[in-house]
Amino acid sequence: MTSIFTGLSAFPLTPLHDDTVDARAFARLIERLAATGVDSITALGSTGSYAYLTTKERARVARLAVEHADDTPVHVGVGALRTSHVLTNAEAAQAAGAAGLLLAPMTYQPLTHDDVFELFRAVTAATDLPVIVYDNPGTTHFEFSNELYGRIAELPGIASIKIPGVPNDPEAARQHVAAIRAVIPEHVTIGVSGDASAATGLNAGCEAWYSVIGGTLPAPAMAITRAAQAGRAADAVAESQRLAPLWDLFAQFGGSLRVVAAIAEQLGLARRPSLPLPIQGLSHQQREQVAAVVNLLGLG
Amino acid sequence: MTSIFTGLSAFPLTPLHDDTVDARAFARLIERLAATGVDSITALGSTGSYAYLTTKERARVARLAVEHADDTPVHVGVGALRTSHVLTNAEAAQAAGAAGLLLAPMTYQPLTHDDVFELFRAVTAATDLPVIVYDNPGTTHFEFSNELYGRIAELPGIASIKIPGVPNDPEAARQHVAAIRAVIPEHVTIGVSGDASAATGLNAGCEAWYSVIGGTLPAPAMAITRAAQAGRAADAVAESQRLAPLWDLFAQFGGSLRVVAAIAEQLGLARRPSLPLPIQGLSHQQREQVAAVVNLLGLG
Repeated sequence: MTSIFTGLSAFPLTPLHDDTVDARAFARLIERLAATGVDSITALGSTGSYAYLTTKERARVARLAVEHADDTPVHVGVGALRTSHVLTNAEAAQAAGAAGLLLAPMTYQPLTHDDVFELFRAVTAATDLPVIVYDNPGTTHFEFSNELYGRIAELPGIASIKIPGVPNDPEAARQHVAAIRAVIPEHVTIGVSGDASAATGLNAGCEAWYSVIGGTLPAPAMAITRAAQAGRAADAVAESQRLAPLWDLFAQFGGSLRVVAAIAEQLGLARRPSLPLPIQGLSHQQREQVAAVVNLLGLG
Repeated sequence: MTSIFTGLSAFPLTPLHDDTVDARAFARLIERLAATGVDSITALGSTGSYAYLTTKERARVARLAVEHADDTPVHVGVGALRTSHVLTNAEAAQAAGAAGLLLAPMTYQPLTHDDVFELFRAVTAATDLPVIVYDNPGTTHFEFSNELYGRIAELPGIASIKIPGVPNDPEAARQHVAAIRAVIPEHVTIGVSGDASAATGLNAGCEAWYSVIGGTLPAPAMAITRAAQAGRAADAVAESQRLAPLWDLFAQFGGSLRVVAAIAEQLGLARRPSLPLPIQGLSHQQREQVAAVVNLLGLG
């Protein structure tokens, strides 16, 4: 099955400079992804700092993404703490020409499963665009269950589920993906995130990779994706293992965002600092470690 | 020591109706608190749904609170995911006539201790108002350490620390509070939150109670606070134990917010539903349990 919800979906940063979206740097990132031939671009994912931007900034970023993506389909993250703000973002994304919406259940007060189901119901009822369910417990602190995946995936308009990293063991990963597959309709794709487990996830039956590094370093992400899609499972794993020093930095520095921002800054794709405060960039010493890995792996 | 950062600080709800702040209901809640003689009012705390409101709504709520509080000092919650938005909220709160600011390190991406220190540094540098450090790991998912309390409390402008619930055991609670007291300047007060442990916290040396029920049911919160302040530790504990069925509901229904909103709706202080979606109110059956407890305890 091929659709705009399969293959490599690249998650670009939204570089900020002087507390303002750096439209030029963002447009260049998008053009770079389109030129590399990624299967889709997801703007305003967690890597795209959606949670930190105003409704107005988000509408502008959505328009920029679509304008600079050429023929590549663009999905747009519309999550917000308040349902009415999600609906405003969804409307703006649709007006911008988005192909799909990405929706995470952001939380401040803990949400119940019914709260989250009703959120997805309200959004799918209000938009014509297909929706990706965004399960990212590391940032939302909301825990989906397979039962909830199933309930939400039955809603008309749900196109895909972005799941967190899968188990390392290939057989355990296959069972994990199969258990989700068993409770959702066939037309809903499963996309893995957690870059370090992407090869395992794709080999285990995930149809998509919602990729952080794909947004900044699309070439190695494409190599992993195409190998897995062609049934060359071992090649996908080998390329992922080659990138192990990068995954180690993600683990060591508290997630992928600060590392990927440092890489983009190092490669001249974003001006430093590029993250929204209070999130500070990596320290000088941490950046040196990142630079060493980029050079070692020939990612520059 | 008595200051505007000691005694009972009452946290009112910000009722929403049709996705709009119900200014009339909010003003009445504030007037009720002022009339009861609470020591301060903290508008736009977690109970006041600050995280769900726009900058504009928050400025309006801050103005309403000050206008209707008579002589009672009003603190205003200014937390936001992005530092620049916090600064905007702080400016609006100051313009509204707030006596102090309440600042929680909201997170989407996990924050480091340095990120949070720099956030408090930026805010205290930008405002003339004293700041309450708001430690609420259940909603922010950020974990303070005593070392970080100490670093932040040294910043000029820090007036108080709102800590989560203390241990149930009185001696353990005393040691817990003493350990924080040992690392912060004398002029910085410690205020307990987690209503169920407020009596224990006050008896253990906390100078303030940042109180959820104080915002909706000020009378019993006053009784606990005044008993503890007068050295009648056993009376404070007895009144808290009398309210145990209420604390049980908080634990059973995933926190205090939905329960307190249901009580406010039951008492005619807010129109139902009064919480920002996607947060749904309690179910019919849960409301019946709440009503039974309100009647049992004579809280109506």
